[in-house]
Amino acid sequence: MKKYVFGVDIGGTTVKLGFFDREGNVLEKWEIPTRTENGGENILPDIAESIREKMAEKKVDREAVAGIGVGAPGAIDAEGVVHGAVNLGWGTFSIPETLSALLDMPVKAGNDANVAALGEMWKGGGQGCRNLVAVTLGTGVGGGIIVNGAMLTGAVGAGGEIGHIHVEDDETEACACKNTGCLEQYASATGIARLARRELQASDQASTLREIPLERISAKAVFDAVKAGDELAVRVAGRFGEYLGKALGVIAGIVNPEVIVVGGGVSKAGEILFDYIRPYFDKTVFSGCSGARLTLAKLGNDAGIYGAAKLMLE
Amino acid sequence: MKKYVFGVDIGGTTVKLGFFDREGNVLEKWEIPTRTENGGENILPDIAESIREKMAEKKVDREAVAGIGVGAPGAIDAEGVVHGAVNLGWGTFSIPETLSALLDMPVKAGNDANVAALGEMWKGGGQGCRNLVAVTLGTGVGGGIIVNGAMLTGAVGAGGEIGHIHVEDDETEACACKNTGCLEQYASATGIARLARRELQASDQASTLREIPLERISAKAVFDAVKAGDELAVRVAGRFGEYLGKALGVIAGIVNPEVIVVGGGVSKAGEILFDYIRPYFDKTVFSGCSGARLTLAKLGNDAGIYGAAKLMLE
Repeated sequence: MKKYVFGVDIGGTTVKLGFFDREGNVLEKWEIPTRTENGGENILPDIAESIREKMAEKKVDREAVAGIGVGAPGAIDAEGVVHGAVNLGWGTFSIPETLSALLDMPVKAGNDANVAALGEMWKGGGQGCRNLVAVTLGTGVGGGIIVNGAMLTGAVGAGGEIGHIHVEDDETEACACKNTGCLEQYASATGIARLARRELQASDQASTLREIPLERISAKAVFDAVKAGDELAVRVAGRFGEYLGKALGVIAGIVNPEVIVVGGGVSKAGEILFDYIRPYFDKTVFSGCSGARLTLAKLGNDAGIYGAAKLMLE
Repeated sequence: MKKYVFGVDIGGTTVKLGFFDREGNVLEKWEIPTRTENGGENILPDIAESIREKMAEKKVDREAVAGIGVGAPGAIDAEGVVHGAVNLGWGTFSIPETLSALLDMPVKAGNDANVAALGEMWKGGGQGCRNLVAVTLGTGVGGGIIVNGAMLTGAVGAGGEIGHIHVEDDETEACACKNTGCLEQYASATGIARLARRELQASDQASTLREIPLERISAKAVFDAVKAGDELAVRVAGRFGEYLGKALGVIAGIVNPEVIVVGGGVSKAGEILFDYIRPYFDKTVFSGCSGARLTLAKLGNDAGIYGAAKLMLE
């Protein structure tokens, strides 16, 4: 009987690992550094070694482990083949084949944002759902989509990359992806700070945000000011909410999810985010898809290891 | 050995039926009227009767038939339960259960637009693909999405309803869905005619479209004029292309399809459509998803019966 499963979430600086039972209880979690030098050639061997040690420490037999699920940044297709992951130094190869050869156990792999979405569906903000959109508002805007219980991977593993959908024709600055007017330019932590700087520069209106040097304005500072009733900050939140609310309306119209889970650093502002997102979502979403619930993510940085474990158990 | 399969496409006035071999060769196709009176209670019995007659005529034994696939308008969930189909008079019930009971054969059912997308993937413009977006530009704008070989049904069967994604904030007229600024208001046959009427009313510019009474302007007339080099018509095509190209860019960014298949009455204008769509698609789509091919649908009104047969064989 396969009682256990490992979930692995590979990031640019650390690898998070979780040792789970089949029911999704995390029995232990830990981290190891991500060694990206030499094309990231040590990353999977380091993971294999760490899992081997953990199994020895816990006296867990290989026969008791269903396998290892892996989430990693970059385009990863439905077979777990990574097609380049710049942050890790990786080119193109099969994660399941490589890691299976090192550990002699089944391995499944997917894009980290898609895997995190699976985690939120299993044990987070979308429990019990089969159709879910997860949005991560961090330095960028990440996304993961679950359709009928499975990750929407797409043709080359770029499914759910909602941070780069076009939402503004009049933008002049380029996004990190080189297009202009991407959702990420307005709804990420960086994007919110940029919207705030623009508002501050466009008028002399009094605002507590003026006490902060312009280049140090953060999304957190904006939402702290919103909570204190600062008018200029409220206007920034309104613009953020309009871009994100309308984009989520479009996404919901295409995917028809039961729930939209919002996570990432910006989501620490809490339920107040939805006061700005929901009016635009409600106004623009197709009536047939308007039943989608908007909710905060629950698993924080652990969504990846939960989702990776779930991916392996699918 | 199950050598055969039936594909059924239920429309508001006629039901199309196809008798296929497993390889997707259509051995015969025919139509019967759709009797929508009395809540559409005769529709499935009529289909059962017609299939029974065809099997007798062809001397096909029930054991040789894999089953019956059905596409129908309305919200139909992953189990084939229809949650209201106004055109047919239907409320909520299970199509597979009801039709299976009448014919004693396996039945699967899905939304007609999603099923048509499956048909285009199997034998039409998206052959060999596993990730596809089908757009139907008719009186309205319909859509069907295939993810990893399966229909994107969504939580309540409204997946792929791309006609009602919000694309214009400044619209004042309401869409049939009661929202304003839906893609359908600009990219359907009706929408293109509306754009043309607006352009004609906004200026005195000479145009061959002025020879047609305003209320009789059609999408076909617009694209005929485009082909003849009419400047005003070209501007209308440009607006159509901008709305649709950017919307397809957004959809591709979310779904990461291999191919986008464009069908419906408007697509009879031919490849010239893409001259107006592609520039906006290319300019706005996320680079990771830009590999999506734009192509014309191939199966016309038969996409539904092909897709229904394929659904049953899945």
